[in-house]
Amino acid sequence: MVQDITEKSGAPPGTLMYVGRASDVAPRITLIEYNENQFIEKEFADIHECLTHVEPGMVKWINIDGVHNVTLVEQIGKLFNIHPLTLEDIVNTSQRPKFEDYDNYVVCMMKMIYSPEGKVEQVQRGDDESFISEQLSILLLDGNTVISFQEAQSGDVFDIIRERIRQGKGRVRKCGADYLAYALIDAVVDSYFDVLEVIGDQVELLEEELIHNPNPAVLPRLHKMKRRMIFLRKAVWPMRELINNLERSETELIVATTHVYLRDAHDHTIRLIDTVETNRDLLSGMMDLYMSSVSNRMNEVMKTLTIITTIFVPLTFIAGVYGMNFDNMPELHEQYGYFFILGVMLIIVLVLIFFFRKRKWL
Amino acid sequence: MVQDITEKSGAPPGTLMYVGRASDVAPRITLIEYNENQFIEKEFADIHECLTHVEPGMVKWINIDGVHNVTLVEQIGKLFNIHPLTLEDIVNTSQRPKFEDYDNYVVCMMKMIYSPEGKVEQVQRGDDESFISEQLSILLLDGNTVISFQEAQSGDVFDIIRERIRQGKGRVRKCGADYLAYALIDAVVDSYFDVLEVIGDQVELLEEELIHNPNPAVLPRLHKMKRRMIFLRKAVWPMRELINNLERSETELIVATTHVYLRDAHDHTIRLIDTVETNRDLLSGMMDLYMSSVSNRMNEVMKTLTIITTIFVPLTFIAGVYGMNFDNMPELHEQYGYFFILGVMLIIVLVLIFFFRKRKWL
Amino acid sequence: MVQDITEKSGAPPGTLMYVGRASDVAPRITLIEYNENQFIEKEFADIHECLTHVEPGMVKWINIDGVHNVTLVEQIGKLFNIHPLTLEDIVNTSQRPKFEDYDNYVVCMMKMIYSPEGKVEQVQRGDDESFISEQLSILLLDGNTVISFQEAQSGDVFDIIRERIRQGKGRVRKCGADYLAYALIDAVVDSYFDVLEVIGDQVELLEEELIHNPNPAVLPRLHKMKRRMIFLRKAVWPMRELINNLERSETELIVATTHVYLRDAHDHTIRLIDTVETNRDLLSGMMDLYMSSVSNRMNEVMKTLTIITTIFVPLTFIAGVYGMNFDNMPELHEQYGYFFILGVMLIIVLVLIFFFRKRKWL
Amino acid sequence: MVQDITEKSGAPPGTLMYVGRASDVAPRITLIEYNENQFIEKEFADIHECLTHVEPGMVKWINIDGVHNVTLVEQIGKLFNIHPLTLEDIVNTSQRPKFEDYDNYVVCMMKMIYSPEGKVEQVQRGDDESFISEQLSILLLDGNTVISFQEAQSGDVFDIIRERIRQGKGRVRKCGADYLAYALIDAVVDSYFDVLEVIGDQVELLEEELIHNPNPAVLPRLHKMKRRMIFLRKAVWPMRELINNLERSETELIVATTHVYLRDAHDHTIRLIDTVETNRDLLSGMMDLYMSSVSNRMNEVMKTLTIITTIFVPLTFIAGVYGMNFDNMPELHEQYGYFFILGVMLIIVLVLIFFFRKRKWL
Amino acid sequence: MVQDITEKSGAPPGTLMYVGRASDVAPRITLIEYNENQFIEKEFADIHECLTHVEPGMVKWINIDGVHNVTLVEQIGKLFNIHPLTLEDIVNTSQRPKFEDYDNYVVCMMKMIYSPEGKVEQVQRGDDESFISEQLSILLLDGNTVISFQEAQSGDVFDIIRERIRQGKGRVRKCGADYLAYALIDAVVDSYFDVLEVIGDQVELLEEELIHNPNPAVLPRLHKMKRRMIFLRKAVWPMRELINNLERSETELIVATTHVYLRDAHDHTIRLIDTVETNRDLLSGMMDLYMSSVSNRMNEVMKTLTIITTIFVPLTFIAGVYGMNFDNMPELHEQYGYFFILGVMLIIVLVLIFFFRKRKWL
Repeated sequence: MVQDITEKSGAPPGTLMYVGRASDVAPRITLIEYNENQFIEKEFADIHECLTHVEPGMVKWINIDGVHNVTLVEQIGKLFNIHPLTLEDIVNTSQRPKFEDYDNYVVCMMKMIYSPEGKVEQVQRGDDESFISEQLSILLLDGNTVISFQEAQSGDVFDIIRERIRQGKGRVRKCGADYLAYALIDAVVDSYFDVLEVIGDQVELLEEELIHNPNPAVLPRLHKMKRRMIFLRKAVWPMRELINNLERSETELIVATTHVYLRDAHDHTIRLIDTVETNRDLLSGMMDLYMSSVSNRMNEVMKTLTIITTIFVPLTFIAGVYGMNFDNMPELHEQYGYFFILGVMLIIVLVLIFFFRKRKWL
Repeated sequence: MVQDITEKSGAPPGTLMYVGRASDVAPRITLIEYNENQFIEKEFADIHECLTHVEPGMVKWINIDGVHNVTLVEQIGKLFNIHPLTLEDIVNTSQRPKFEDYDNYVVCMMKMIYSPEGKVEQVQRGDDESFISEQLSILLLDGNTVISFQEAQSGDVFDIIRERIRQGKGRVRKCGADYLAYALIDAVVDSYFDVLEVIGDQVELLEEELIHNPNPAVLPRLHKMKRRMIFLRKAVWPMRELINNLERSETELIVATTHVYLRDAHDHTIRLIDTVETNRDLLSGMMDLYMSSVSNRMNEVMKTLTIITTIFVPLTFIAGVYGMNFDNMPELHEQYGYFFILGVMLIIVLVLIFFFRKRKWL
Repeated sequence: MVQDITEKSGAPPGTLMYVGRASDVAPRITLIEYNENQFIEKEFADIHECLTHVEPGMVKWINIDGVHNVTLVEQIGKLFNIHPLTLEDIVNTSQRPKFEDYDNYVVCMMKMIYSPEGKVEQVQRGDDESFISEQLSILLLDGNTVISFQEAQSGDVFDIIRERIRQGKGRVRKCGADYLAYALIDAVVDSYFDVLEVIGDQVELLEEELIHNPNPAVLPRLHKMKRRMIFLRKAVWPMRELINNLERSETELIVATTHVYLRDAHDHTIRLIDTVETNRDLLSGMMDLYMSSVSNRMNEVMKTLTIITTIFVPLTFIAGVYGMNFDNMPELHEQYGYFFILGVMLIIVLVLIFFFRKRKWL
Repeated sequence: MVQDITEKSGAPPGTLMYVGRASDVAPRITLIEYNENQFIEKEFADIHECLTHVEPGMVKWINIDGVHNVTLVEQIGKLFNIHPLTLEDIVNTSQRPKFEDYDNYVVCMMKMIYSPEGKVEQVQRGDDESFISEQLSILLLDGNTVISFQEAQSGDVFDIIRERIRQGKGRVRKCGADYLAYALIDAVVDSYFDVLEVIGDQVELLEEELIHNPNPAVLPRLHKMKRRMIFLRKAVWPMRELINNLERSETELIVATTHVYLRDAHDHTIRLIDTVETNRDLLSGMMDLYMSSVSNRMNEVMKTLTIITTIFVPLTFIAGVYGMNFDNMPELHEQYGYFFILGVMLIIVLVLIFFFRKRKWL
Repeated sequence: MVQDITEKSGAPPGTLMYVGRASDVAPRITLIEYNENQFIEKEFADIHECLTHVEPGMVKWINIDGVHNVTLVEQIGKLFNIHPLTLEDIVNTSQRPKFEDYDNYVVCMMKMIYSPEGKVEQVQRGDDESFISEQLSILLLDGNTVISFQEAQSGDVFDIIRERIRQGKGRVRKCGADYLAYALIDAVVDSYFDVLEVIGDQVELLEEELIHNPNPAVLPRLHKMKRRMIFLRKAVWPMRELINNLERSETELIVATTHVYLRDAHDHTIRLIDTVETNRDLLSGMMDLYMSSVSNRMNEVMKTLTIITTIFVPLTFIAGVYGMNFDNMPELHEQYGYFFILGVMLIIVLVLIFFFRKRKWL
């Protein structure tokens, strides 16, 4: 998952070829149309049927769940005059987040990461059992239209926006398609914060454990966290550039008042990057901490071994000496020889303990 | 605290929603009005009441302690025509330090870090028992007005400025609101120096201990220092950009003579960053030093073990040989066999000691 | 192979001197000519013969397999008015990937890396038994001509392009030589993805093994992976600059519609770099993981040693004491002395086990 | 000293407050006036007296030793119309090296580092017993005047310049105040080279010792070197920017011919930075080298221990077996049992030695 | 040698003072004059004599071997109107590679590194017994003149250029002095490739040894390689800037056709830097590899020790028990007690071996 390099090498550029998990489920087409007064929401099985339904003068949001149906993407491409390379990028779900500005539309591609909330289908093997990562392509077209392509059908992070549109809350019903596109991107950025919060908590837990009970079991977890950060970093860093390019693009599709919102989203991505980098710093510090604590415990073990050995080996030697069977060993026949030797042994023990204390080993 | 990612994801942009510690205490509104001759200072419970009190032609500093009262922030927003995104950022207390330039005002957001000096309420769990970190938003508006929003009510770093205004010391009474805004930011930057001085002393103490008495107890302290530096770095780095943007912004709210002061504040933030980075370098060097000293001590322990073992194990073996019960062991019946063997053992010990000395183990 | 510094030092600039593996096989010259309606493909032994065959108004792709024949390269240089430095770079096969813009042509030099698919001749000793890396020079000239020089004769990554030209699939037959040049570069970039996919799988396997069965045998493999990444990095990083320079060059040889394709190829190289850097991060994390697991196992071994020693050494000492041969040892003559001592030993063992459990060593 | 963060937080900007070592000695004011023909050098106790002495048309260099007398600095500030922030920076001796361009003057602040050459007073606690580091502020004013403020009275690095002025050697007497300012800065840069040469020699000595006799005593020295490099780096890096800004500033105080000298000084600072960074690289490599040599010696110690244990423990066991007191132990009664067992032991030793040799442990 | 900081601190700028190895040998002045038809080569002892010999309209290359004769350098400086700072840099042989553009000439300073090929005099102590590093200053002046100053008299890397001029091979005889200057720089760059090739081979050898036979003796060699890379890096990195500045300088001394050659040289320096950085990466990876292999061997040694101890210590204890001299030890009097105990010991050994195998220690 980290090395999503499933580029369909060798195919002619502009050839549509789905690269991702195979799926038999038909893609779902959802149309949401609104202006300040009206609101329509419908689901379709066919894109032509959907377009006949479209009314002029309203903001149109066409959402496609599932890009594995290449024919559908091609149809949409023809209907809206989308460049073949854009279509290719939509179905090739291993794109790097990026913004591109064509004559009649702009397109933003990014990774949408979220926890499935009770949904069972795991979209991407992901780097965790609890997060889904899927490619999202947002096209902002002439004629107040936004088309969003979602790689998977396992939900998204847009329910809150749909709800706001339905209920007419917030600015969204009063603004055009460019604000809708911004709102979708902002929802994706916000979802990154959710993910980072979860991971941040896990990092903190791990740190607690590392400080109070360092044990080898933390190691693979630490490594997993690091991997996850590498993955998130790869998703988050290009977002800044994406939003920056979107903000600075000279397209007429985005009106002036939306720019201040884009600037805000830009700040959020910088904050995201800060958080990811901080976590990387923390995790790297934790690796050091773990290694040090392992060394410390090794030291402690070695000291125990050395103390025991140093005390008993000389004693055992003395006992060995008086266990020898020489005929002529005068000490053995002394009345209190045995007790004297026991005393000598005790003195040796005391001297050694004193010595260890002085060296701060005890 | 390091991963302050409590972004209220999903809420429509521009929705005010307090993100931070809940508090039941009503926010405190303080008004300070002054010009070169006059000075007024009052506390209010209501913003409307406060504004009726305002006199034209004077510099007005409205300070709000506590941003958890969203209604109050909204009222102020309406009264002063503040953009919803700014209001959102004010109540969302996990902002990255930043400067933003709107048509009718400029806003600076930053972290104010200080030690509570006897105050008991710990605002943020912080990364230390002795520092409070709270979000501060400074708005410089048309009409010689500065509004400052403080996240918490546990004091601030502005007492010295209030005192100067009261007593008419320094330039502040002679200058406009832009100089006041600068003075507030400068006070925040200065307070970072205080914090860094305290931490710098702790780092130095830790280093002393590491060199003269390296022990495992320094490890968590070292780690804690590192974390604190990561946290401070996150707060300090964006300050440079903030002040830089403020200095270069083409807003007419800041007069020419204030720019040289902003340049000075900019230099101070660079010095802050230098100090933080230097401390990071030092701490990383101290980790290496600790690891090396652990290895050194391990080496010493191992040498002791090896010396004791190497000396006594062969001796014990010899004693064991002459403790065997074979019928036919001629040596046992020699007159001076025992003493001869004791002599052999002594020679072995001397040879081994000579050998260890040669290898510089003793 | 990583330090391909076989620069022919001392030779005057512009002197053709083949730097690479010697080869006796004659270079192969292949001509592919096409427009939207016609298609010609032929192989030649002589470049003059090849050129007499060329028809005006068609896109011409002349492919040379093998640059060890300096005379041939010189002939081509004269015929097409190529700068001596370009010719020198073509035969000197240790070039860094680069783009250069001359008056009458542009040239791209890069490394083509691919697995030989059943071919036996190993072109470059490479850093692996399974990948071939050879230098590729692509010249785009006036008159709708592309000349490609391949260092080796062991195949290339262009079969898919040839097939597309033959069958008239894709855009290539409808476009000019600039699109052909793009398609060749794109094929090279795509082949990097193939290589990275293979390596990525190997990295993942290695990681699995590291987590579940860390053993010294993974070390050289890890090191080899690292080396390979260093090598790939050296090949991939300059590709971005190459394509960027190609895209931004003001040459008239590239028509406007091709620029969007170049931009796409540029994105692909950024993705390549991302993947290489991610793999480097992963490999560096794996090294840390390995070192930690080695430390962990050392710790475990040391604990075993310490426990065994700590339990048996005191017991052996006690046994030694009662193996002494003193005349006067009252305990020896006690009726149940032996059983009492056995009991004492048992208690010592139990106490020590309790102590180890408390220290979590057992 | 590394964390010189003695910023006087809380004081109003522009308030003069000495931050540094307290001193009772009155500051020394020295005036040197010269043109191509004349030369005057005098010492004063009072700045007003000094100024009455000044003659028009000559280059004036006023040197102040000791900035703890805030009144004096304020007087000078008033007399020469210096901005309060500059005065504040002069007396606050923890400034980062910087250049600032005011309307009527330019100011350069830097650290002057030198060995005291027999002088006893240690100005700054420094990071070494042999170097003095003090703040130097150089002001270049209208009217051919240079004012230099030295933090301490323990000498400086300008004796050579004074000598040159006195004797009329070199260009200095022929040029204006801008050349004098350059000469002072150049003297400071040169003194860094002296310091780095001394340290470089120490680093080399340490390296020799590390390679030929690695011992724990090198560790604190290595750490100290690292600290010193961190300190020097902090002083040297901003010098490049300082001189660069000075060179590029559009002030009319610096004439065209002086620019080539500034460019030369700029090159020198780059060389300084190179040297500092190289030393950092070397020191970091030496840390690795030390750690490896510690590991190597540990390995050697462990091998000795293992060999001794492995040889004697089995032998001792055999001796122990035949020391048992069973009634029925047939071997004990064999005629040559004892000698046979000694032979077995010898064979065991030989086999083990062979085994160790094969494993290259011996 | 790495910290070549032998800056003559304190001397007035522009004072000529030789910094380098003292030498009594008189410098050698060699003049090569040529145009497309003529060629003159002569050696002189005096620069005036040399200049009288010069003919107009020909390219002149004056080469000075040895810069310790300050008088000579001063004479040349006066004759060709060279800025004092340039002369100072020429005799001060610790310059950083740099390019400078004066009104009437341009100057390039660099390190020339080469192996002495049978020459015995070791110019610089260097970091190796086999490489010479000396400072080379190339001045390109009005009037088709190149002057090169070589620090030492131990040969150079220009023999191939002299040969080409003599024999009229290559472009050099057809071009002006600017091409000659380029050819000299190119020869220096080429010689770096030679040096890097030699070192690259040594690195590869070292790597082989590290993988197949890691032993402490590789450590100082690894460290030496690292040092050498630090040194080379310091010499190579500024070369890129040097050539870049030369290429971009607006001097009229360099004609248009030479620029493409400079661009080529620029590419070569980037390749050099790539190779140096790659080698640094490799060496750093090798350090890790060495540390890991040391840890592995330590582990192996510790396992052997633990296995031996764990098997024999309990057995020795049992033997000790039955060596006790208690009166009442019933087992001792059993008919087959001895053989039973031997059996018990055997079982213990088998159980322990099984246990070790399970833990994969055997």
